[in-house]
Amino acid sequence: MTERKKLKLGALVHGVGGSMSGWRHPEVQTDASVNFSYYQEQVKLAENGKFDLVFIADGLYITEKSIPHFLNRFEPITILSALAGVTKNIGLVGTLSTTYSEPFTVARQFMSIDHISNGRAGWNLVTSPLEGSAKNYSKNGHPSHDDRYKIAEEHLEITRGLWDSWEDDAFVRDKESGVFFDPKKLHRLNYEGKYFQVEGPLNIGRSKQGQPVVFQAGSSESGKELAAKAADAVFTGHDNIEEARQFYKDVKDRAVAYGRSKDDIVIFPGIAPIVGRTEEEAEQKYLDLVNLTSIENALDYLGRFFEHHDFSQYPLDEPFPDIGDLGKNSFRSNTDKIKKEAKEKGLTLRQVALQAATPRSAFIGTPEKIANLIQEWYEQEAADGLMIYSAIPSALKDFTEQVIPLLQERGIYRKEYESSTLRGNLGLQIPKNRHIASLVKN
Amino acid sequence: MTERKKLKLGALVHGVGGSMSGWRHPEVQTDASVNFSYYQEQVKLAENGKFDLVFIADGLYITEKSIPHFLNRFEPITILSALAGVTKNIGLVGTLSTTYSEPFTVARQFMSIDHISNGRAGWNLVTSPLEGSAKNYSKNGHPSHDDRYKIAEEHLEITRGLWDSWEDDAFVRDKESGVFFDPKKLHRLNYEGKYFQVEGPLNIGRSKQGQPVVFQAGSSESGKELAAKAADAVFTGHDNIEEARQFYKDVKDRAVAYGRSKDDIVIFPGIAPIVGRTEEEAEQKYLDLVNLTSIENALDYLGRFFEHHDFSQYPLDEPFPDIGDLGKNSFRSNTDKIKKEAKEKGLTLRQVALQAATPRSAFIGTPEKIANLIQEWYEQEAADGLMIYSAIPSALKDFTEQVIPLLQERGIYRKEYESSTLRGNLGLQIPKNRHIASLVKN
Repeated sequence: MTERKKLKLGALVHGVGGSMSGWRHPEVQTDASVNFSYYQEQVKLAENGKFDLVFIADGLYITEKSIPHFLNRFEPITILSALAGVTKNIGLVGTLSTTYSEPFTVARQFMSIDHISNGRAGWNLVTSPLEGSAKNYSKNGHPSHDDRYKIAEEHLEITRGLWDSWEDDAFVRDKESGVFFDPKKLHRLNYEGKYFQVEGPLNIGRSKQGQPVVFQAGSSESGKELAAKAADAVFTGHDNIEEARQFYKDVKDRAVAYGRSKDDIVIFPGIAPIVGRTEEEAEQKYLDLVNLTSIENALDYLGRFFEHHDFSQYPLDEPFPDIGDLGKNSFRSNTDKIKKEAKEKGLTLRQVALQAATPRSAFIGTPEKIANLIQEWYEQEAADGLMIYSAIPSALKDFTEQVIPLLQERGIYRKEYESSTLRGNLGLQIPKNRHIASLVKN
Repeated sequence: MTERKKLKLGALVHGVGGSMSGWRHPEVQTDASVNFSYYQEQVKLAENGKFDLVFIADGLYITEKSIPHFLNRFEPITILSALAGVTKNIGLVGTLSTTYSEPFTVARQFMSIDHISNGRAGWNLVTSPLEGSAKNYSKNGHPSHDDRYKIAEEHLEITRGLWDSWEDDAFVRDKESGVFFDPKKLHRLNYEGKYFQVEGPLNIGRSKQGQPVVFQAGSSESGKELAAKAADAVFTGHDNIEEARQFYKDVKDRAVAYGRSKDDIVIFPGIAPIVGRTEEEAEQKYLDLVNLTSIENALDYLGRFFEHHDFSQYPLDEPFPDIGDLGKNSFRSNTDKIKKEAKEKGLTLRQVALQAATPRSAFIGTPEKIANLIQEWYEQEAADGLMIYSAIPSALKDFTEQVIPLLQERGIYRKEYESSTLRGNLGLQIPKNRHIASLVKN
């Protein structure tokens, strides 16, 4: 058996944050979501901490009740590209929806970032949970959860096919003979699917890492299947190590069933560490954050997961209401979990809403405690890597300065980048060009 | 009458160049079209020369016969974003097709670049001349020229509408009260058109220059109408000053007829200057370039304008063949001109093809000669600005070092940037938010 890869780390850079009220924290820069200097600083911090990647999340529909960060933020392709020009080693991964995009454009934009960054781009494939997205994209309705995953599968097949339009040595560029490329090494895709028909070829060649890394971020059945079949990495979320271990094993087993190796797919649960010099200091930092959240904000936040359902109509201190199937077509894995927990633990609506709005992370405490937990998650195969959320503004700095040195001492995390590409650092192979692998010609 | 604005300049950065054979020039870096360092150097040159903007062209379909630069190049949104992070003053303008994109995505991406660059973004709106584009975008067919312009008009109306989703002072960001934004200053678009239905609002606010600058690059009747009605700037091409003056007057008159001022639209013909210490040296540089072009390449290049028509089937040294309506649905203004000239001047196919592949610019000669011509074009209202193509690799450097100082001495070109935004430098006003201008509320 080969030695296990070292722990991987991603930093979710998220402007004023992923909660309703986190922006009220005294240290938050309130324009952070549209401030390039802020993004640059965060990414420099992460690059100094030898993070594998930064991660930019996204969404395609807002209402008056959306999280402040979602209302006014950079679009992922643009901010990733801008960061590519001002960084050297760190991977650049961003969300883009297969439900509301064209494979030709997606393939081009990510491959172009991959060239600008010399092999550090990654695409986080999502299918858009928000119903309302359809209204911004001239569509009659938001496709069902199942259809969205069928669309996603075709979309990814095409995107990967377009990425292989040119063999790696296709561009001869011989001035003397006037031969710019070898036409035998240019391949049209000629894809005819149910949802897409794309001829190709793509007007950009492969990158230093072959193809951008593909993340998949849905944790539903369909999400796990797509990840196991075709993704290089998974971004997921779990409350506890048991659940995370179960998910990890499930996805790896499915990947093996598709004929892949366990090492071909890297699993990243998200965690929101809050570091203190003492347990009490860390706990206080968390409580300060919770105290910024009003119950109105918490209800709005909860509603977003359930197709913008208005929870203010129910009594706050009675058991979580029966809302039937609501939520099944949007963030399915989240909404199933919320309903299940509320029932099992007999939670009230107030408890569910506050817990949803400011989840209590297990990773709150001293640097040693957090390092211990991380080591446990890593060694017990709950995670190959972790995606670090900044619940409070200093989180990334605190984590980088105080927790990372411990992980390095313990030998489970790198001291220097192993590679100049994202695939290289993640320990993923450069995918062979399909036209070489199968010896299919044009 | 107010004093006329100074001359404006744009630099078309185009990797290995816009011709079939220019890449064979001894000084060309043959991977330039996918080399970020190359783009950075060119843009630094332009910024040192106080250029208003760099310009990134685009296309959505390639074949084996496409120009080498088109086969393997950066996608405009990504390269503009990357350049935004490493420049300070220069405008960043790129092509994006309204025929094969979604207004919500286009509005977001350009506005996001506008925020990353602090007000320096511009969109060159095109309708995609290339028939084949449809095959990369799951479409049954490429819409007709007229339909494309109808789509473009709706697309632009929506994009501009989405850009005004948030009033400039909508984001209150008051931590004490917990008010992030003023809901009265958030506006849904609710656009219901023939081609698009978009609810909004956009998930990003207005920028320092209000909205990105909108260029229009078609010079057909429909192109001129759209420009006059709705664009901030026009990118055009003319062989001689008479034609350029006529176009200039035509577009300005049409803009005035739409109730706009002549100053509301800035007209940029493209030129390809070749600078030499003597006339002979400059002429020799041009001839060296022509000598790189084979007749086969020239025929391929010509064919691209005419829906990839195969011109190798006709005798080379007989009059340009009668090809009927071919070309009407792609680059209409170019193809009409080529046919008209061939007929009037009795040109052979060989002459037409070589002229198309390596057009002889009027702007070849000593720095003084070129400065004189530019001054003439500017003063005689053939141009408000000029878009500089690099026909040979040193063109931008030569122009910046040798011609610009002359234009500055003559007082027709800036010595320092007047503004930190693209609109500011182009002398364009910040567009008022429609919801303030008309006092319409939500």
